[in-house]
Amino acid sequence: MAFEITNQFLEKLVGFIYENNDSKIKNLFSEVHYADIAEVLDEVSFDEAIYIIKLLDSEKTSEILTELDEDTREKILENLSAKEIAEEIEEMDSDDAADIIGELSEERQNRVINAIEDDELAADIKELLSYNDDSAGSLMAKELVKVYETWTVAGCLRRIRAQAKEVSRVHSIYVVDKQEKLIGRLSLKDLIVAKNEQKISEIYINKVDSVNVNEDDEEVAKIMVKYDLEAIPVVDDANVLLGRITIDDIVDLLKEEADKDYQLAAGLTQDVDSDDSILDLTRARLPWLFLGLVGGVGAFIIMEGFQGVFTKYATLFFFTPLIAAMAGNVGVQSSAIIVQGLANDDVKGSINSRLFKEMLLAALNGVILALFLFLFVWIYEGKIDLALAISASLVVVIIIAGLIGTFVPLFLNKRGIDPAIATGPFITTSNDIFGILIYFLIAKLILGI
Amino acid sequence: MAFEITNQFLEKLVGFIYENNDSKIKNLFSEVHYADIAEVLDEVSFDEAIYIIKLLDSEKTSEILTELDEDTREKILENLSAKEIAEEIEEMDSDDAADIIGELSEERQNRVINAIEDDELAADIKELLSYNDDSAGSLMAKELVKVYETWTVAGCLRRIRAQAKEVSRVHSIYVVDKQEKLIGRLSLKDLIVAKNEQKISEIYINKVDSVNVNEDDEEVAKIMVKYDLEAIPVVDDANVLLGRITIDDIVDLLKEEADKDYQLAAGLTQDVDSDDSILDLTRARLPWLFLGLVGGVGAFIIMEGFQGVFTKYATLFFFTPLIAAMAGNVGVQSSAIIVQGLANDDVKGSINSRLFKEMLLAALNGVILALFLFLFVWIYEGKIDLALAISASLVVVIIIAGLIGTFVPLFLNKRGIDPAIATGPFITTSNDIFGILIYFLIAKLILGI
Repeated sequence: MAFEITNQFLEKLVGFIYENNDSKIKNLFSEVHYADIAEVLDEVSFDEAIYIIKLLDSEKTSEILTELDEDTREKILENLSAKEIAEEIEEMDSDDAADIIGELSEERQNRVINAIEDDELAADIKELLSYNDDSAGSLMAKELVKVYETWTVAGCLRRIRAQAKEVSRVHSIYVVDKQEKLIGRLSLKDLIVAKNEQKISEIYINKVDSVNVNEDDEEVAKIMVKYDLEAIPVVDDANVLLGRITIDDIVDLLKEEADKDYQLAAGLTQDVDSDDSILDLTRARLPWLFLGLVGGVGAFIIMEGFQGVFTKYATLFFFTPLIAAMAGNVGVQSSAIIVQGLANDDVKGSINSRLFKEMLLAALNGVILALFLFLFVWIYEGKIDLALAISASLVVVIIIAGLIGTFVPLFLNKRGIDPAIATGPFITTSNDIFGILIYFLIAKLILGI
Repeated sequence: MAFEITNQFLEKLVGFIYENNDSKIKNLFSEVHYADIAEVLDEVSFDEAIYIIKLLDSEKTSEILTELDEDTREKILENLSAKEIAEEIEEMDSDDAADIIGELSEERQNRVINAIEDDELAADIKELLSYNDDSAGSLMAKELVKVYETWTVAGCLRRIRAQAKEVSRVHSIYVVDKQEKLIGRLSLKDLIVAKNEQKISEIYINKVDSVNVNEDDEEVAKIMVKYDLEAIPVVDDANVLLGRITIDDIVDLLKEEADKDYQLAAGLTQDVDSDDSILDLTRARLPWLFLGLVGGVGAFIIMEGFQGVFTKYATLFFFTPLIAAMAGNVGVQSSAIIVQGLANDDVKGSINSRLFKEMLLAALNGVILALFLFLFVWIYEGKIDLALAISASLVVVIIIAGLIGTFVPLFLNKRGIDPAIATGPFITTSNDIFGILIYFLIAKLILGI
C-alpha cells in the first residue's frame, strides 16, 4: 500500500514546476497522502518545496507542515508571511497548531496568533503555549466531544454531530456536569446502542481515567500504555475538563524518548540524524569524545605512575586495553539494565540489594572470564604468578565496574537526574580509569613488587 | 489517578488469603484495574497468585493474564487445567488468545483448543497460530466490525450493534463486497451523521489503507505510525478481509524493538530485565564479554609485537587506553547514527557518499581532539616529535574507526542482517584492535623507529 517516491515521479514533478503547470501538479498529488507529500518535499529543492506549499490547498498543506522535519518546516515557515502561516494554522488541530507556533520566535508567534481569524482557536493556542514543555498540557488538544449529563441520547447525537466535525477522531465522549467538571465517559458504541429517549446520566460510565494538566508527559505515556488507552482526558486541579491526549502523540513521544536514550548511550548529546550537517553532527559527537580524551589522559597518567613495574613485568602493560575494555563493557551492561528498568518502573528493592545482586553476578562472570585469561597467560607466557595476578585483578575490576554501572544510575535517579546520561561514554570512561588503576594496584600486590 | 501498590494493601490481601476470606478479596479488587492486579500478582507469592486467579471471575482474570510477565504467566498456566485455560481464553480477544496459546507446548495447545466451546473462536485461534511470528497475521485480531456495501444505514446500525458487542473498541467499520473483499471504510462518526435510508454504497469512503497478512510486522508499525492510523485492516492476496491490527499492539511492538536495540547496543544478547535471575543475566551478558576478552587478547598480541619500541618510547604504550577508547567511542557514535537512520528509513544516498561524509566528519573531530592531545603531550613530555606522532595517529585512528562504524551496519543491512548487532561491544572490540594496530604503525612511521 505504501507510496514509493520514484525518480520518475520526481522528474515529472520538477518538470511541471518548471513549466508552471499548476493543474498537473495538483493532479499529481491528488491521490498522495500528506505524510508522503512531506517526504517528497524533503527530496526536492527548497524553492520547489515552497512552490508546492503555496500551490496546494491549505487543508492539505497544513497536514503536510505537521509531518515535515523540524528543519525543513522552519525554513519553509520563514518564507511564509504571518497571514499565510495563520491560514495553515486554522486548518490544524490545536495541539499541532501550538507545537508549530511554539517553534517560531516570540515576536512572530504574536503576529501569527493575531492573524488567526478564529478567536476561539487563537485563545486555545495561547492556552496550550502557556503549559510547561514536558507536561500533559503540552501534549493535549482542545478538540474533543463533550456532553452534559442532563442531555438525552437523541439530543446528544444531534449535538455531537456538530462537535464531531471538528474532531478528526472520536475516541470517547466525555460527560461533564454543569460546572464543566469531568464526571464520566461514553463511547460512541454505547450511544448508538442506547435508546433515543434515555438521559446521558442514566447510561454514562462514571469511571473515567484522567490526568492533571501539569502531569509529566512521560508519566502520561506510561499510564496510557499500561492501561491500553487510546485517548485520555486532561483536567485542571478542580477536575474541569481542559482537553484530551490521543495515542498517536504518545507514540511519537515514546519514539523520541527511545531515540534519545539510544543516542545518550551511544555518546551523542543531542537529537541528530544521519542527514544533518557535519557541523551539527560534530556538535553532537565532540563533547563525549572530549570526555573520552580526558579519560584517556587520566589513564596515561596512571600508567606512567606504574612505569617502574615495566622493566620486570612489561606484559602487564600489554593487557591494559583488555582490562579497560572489560571494565567498560561490564559497566555499560549493568548500567543499561538499570536505566531500562528505571524507565519501565520495574527496578524493585533497595540500592543495597541491587548492588549485592550485581556483585554476585559480576563475580560469577568475572571468575569465568578470568579462568580463560589465566589459562591463556599461563600457557602463552609460561609464568603462573603473572597469570594469577592478571586474572585475579580482572575479577576485581569486573566486580567494581559492575558496581559503578549499577550505582551511578540509581544514585542519579534518586537525585532526580535522568539516569540515561550515566550510560555509554560516561560509564566507559570512568570505568577505564578505575579499571586500570585497580588492575595495577592488585597486580603489584600479588606480584609483590 | 494511578493505583499504588502499598504494603498496607499487600498485608490486607495476604491476610484475607490466609483466612480464605474470598468475599473480602473480591471486594478489595473490585475497583482495581486488571493491569494493576497483574502487578499485584508479581508481588505476592506464587501460591497466593494462583489462589487469586482461581477466585476472580474469568472476565477479569483473562485480562490479567494478558498483562502478566511472560514468566509469571507461564508458571500460572502450568497450574491450570486445559479446561480452565480454555475458559480464560474464551473471554479474550482472538489476538491475545492466540499469543497466550502460542506460549504453551504444542501438545497443550491442542488440548486447550479442543476444550474451547466456541467453535468460531477455536478456528480463529488456529488460523492466527498458523501465521509467521513476524507477520501482520501474528499481530491481527479477528474481531472487527464489517458491513456489506448493499446494506442501508439503518440496517447497518442495527447489525453493528450486535457485532460491536464483541469488539472492545470500534475504530473503523470496514465495507466489503459480496466476496468479502475489502472495498472501503466508514467511521462511526460518518454513520451517525448519515441519514437512515441511505445505502452504505453511497456513503462509504472507497480509499482504505490495508496490509497483506504476510507483511513484516515492523513494516506494519512504520505504516501505522507514518500515516497516524489507529487501526488497519489485514487482507489476503485476493484482498479478502481477514482481521485488523490496532495501535495498542503496535505500541507494544515498538517498545519491544526499542528495548531490543538498546540492549544490543549495550552488549546484552537477549531480552532480560533487572529482576531476572543471576543465571539468566549471566547468559545475556557473558557472550559479549567473552568477545571483549578475545579482543583484549588480540590487543595484547599486537602490543607485544611492538615491545621493541618500548625502550625508547615507553610513553607510546601509556596512551593505548586513550587510543582504544577514542576508536571505540567514535565507532559507537557513527554506527548508532546509521543504525537509527536505517530503522527510521532515512538513510539516503549511496554507501560511498555516506563513507565520504563520515570521513570528513571524523577528520574534523579528529583534528580538534588531536590538537588538544598534541599540546598536552608536548607540554607534559616536552617532546614535539612524540606529540606529533601520537596526535597524528589519533586522527587516522578516529577516521578509520568512523569508517568502520559507518560501513559495517550499512553492509549488514544490505545483506539483510539486522544492523543493530553491529553496535556496542562488536564495534568497540573491533575498533580497539584496529585502533591500537594503526596507532603503533603510524607512530613508528613518524618517529622513524
